[in-house]
Amino acid sequence: MTALDRAALSPAEARALFRGGLVTPTAGWSSGFTQANLIIVPKEQAFDVLLFAERNPKPCPILGVLEAGQTTGPLLAGGDIRTDVGRYTVYENGVLVAEPTDLTAWWRDDLVTFIVGCSFTFEAALQQAGIPIAHIEQGRNVPMYRTNRRCASAGSMAGPLVVSMRPIRADRVADAARITARYPAVHGAPVHSGDPADLGIRDLASPDFGDAVTVPDGFVPVFWACGVTPQAAVMESRPPLAIGHAPGHMLITDARDSDYLVP
Amino acid sequence: MTALDRAALSPAEARALFRGGLVTPTAGWSSGFTQANLIIVPKEQAFDVLLFAERNPKPCPILGVLEAGQTTGPLLAGGDIRTDVGRYTVYENGVLVAEPTDLTAWWRDDLVTFIVGCSFTFEAALQQAGIPIAHIEQGRNVPMYRTNRRCASAGSMAGPLVVSMRPIRADRVADAARITARYPAVHGAPVHSGDPADLGIRDLASPDFGDAVTVPDGFVPVFWACGVTPQAAVMESRPPLAIGHAPGHMLITDARDSDYLVP
Repeated sequence: MTALDRAALSPAEARALFRGGLVTPTAGWSSGFTQANLIIVPKEQAFDVLLFAERNPKPCPILGVLEAGQTTGPLLAGGDIRTDVGRYTVYENGVLVAEPTDLTAWWRDDLVTFIVGCSFTFEAALQQAGIPIAHIEQGRNVPMYRTNRRCASAGSMAGPLVVSMRPIRADRVADAARITARYPAVHGAPVHSGDPADLGIRDLASPDFGDAVTVPDGFVPVFWACGVTPQAAVMESRPPLAIGHAPGHMLITDARDSDYLVP
Repeated sequence: MTALDRAALSPAEARALFRGGLVTPTAGWSSGFTQANLIIVPKEQAFDVLLFAERNPKPCPILGVLEAGQTTGPLLAGGDIRTDVGRYTVYENGVLVAEPTDLTAWWRDDLVTFIVGCSFTFEAALQQAGIPIAHIEQGRNVPMYRTNRRCASAGSMAGPLVVSMRPIRADRVADAARITARYPAVHGAPVHSGDPADLGIRDLASPDFGDAVTVPDGFVPVFWACGVTPQAAVMESRPPLAIGHAPGHMLITDARDSDYLVP
């Protein structure tokens, strides 16, 4: 499938492909529609996860919640949260135990699904402003890094801020900040620009999630809060069961990116 | 105590007075500091309350959460949530059973406290723009009304939107909307102006909470979402125990109104 095809798919068409077994990162898919992170936990842990998101809105912007046992909702009309993402991650006691392409075997009626904003939402706006997105151009998954910054904890949930990185030409860093600041519900403005070491990132070529991308001369690594952050907290806080999306393999929702644009 | 005295008190001084037994509505107190609504429920119901707030951010903006058993926090440094509000409301199975001035006898270690934004926060900004606040000038509690609009429900939590009303001179309604829109975290812009019947309010002179105020000729009743909304949902959803502040008797926090002002 060409990039053009992927971009032109409706969210329902895209979800149907993933439901059918396709496994691929979703950057560039269903242009104009909002992609989202997932974090799924038993009801017992759901308050801590929601409070963690409330206290850390920049990395964990909640776009929607499916209550205990619900498998669909307005963000994925006609869809099924158990099948409509290309690949999932399953954690037991904080340890990754499986990366299934279908959650049917793992599903329980007490599971609560949090649909969390993703920085893919503002990538189209960056591109339209003439700011290229390296990982899309290089056909890779966005690089993501654990940082040395701690999130505000909530009950059992504690962990580091996770960031995504995009190389931006030095004379466009301000534009990238300005444009993404207009999307506060999907991570908003960058948290950092230019000095990976200050975030505790030793080697940009070795991301903790996703793929490395080239940072050409004259480009600055710019970092945005990342919706993988709640997964990192889940790994640290070790609930009996937690499920996420595989990083870069997002839920493609029926919401439009423009729904999250502020004046 | 004169209005000037009340306005000049620090939040800690004001809380100490209420802790000492004073009972009076708090409009006009501790000028420049943020007043807040309370809703306190057992951990068992806390996820539903937080999700209800998440889904209804306009009436239920969360400023802070004290986790199970916590009685103080950064919004009330050195204070105690069980004593520092003038009057509380206690609901058992949705029925108001007590209005104590102290929660010590009701406290349990599984209680979670939600500190919810209040429209008092933007009243100083309205006054500074030359828009008088009737209930302050008339020495009354702000009038609040249940409406015919339903909130988005969450688990066991469902209920009507509750609004506060301020009469605004017709040529200042647009200014009042513009000014309060800059405080999105404390109810923001009005939800309605000028037609109480459209909200299902039959008689402005009979508010469901607080006191009636006079609406002079040439003034329009303007309605803002109100932080009593979660209490109305608690009454409808009938959890075994829930505690709020008595309407108009707010928690005076250490946050500044300007903390919630956006550009």
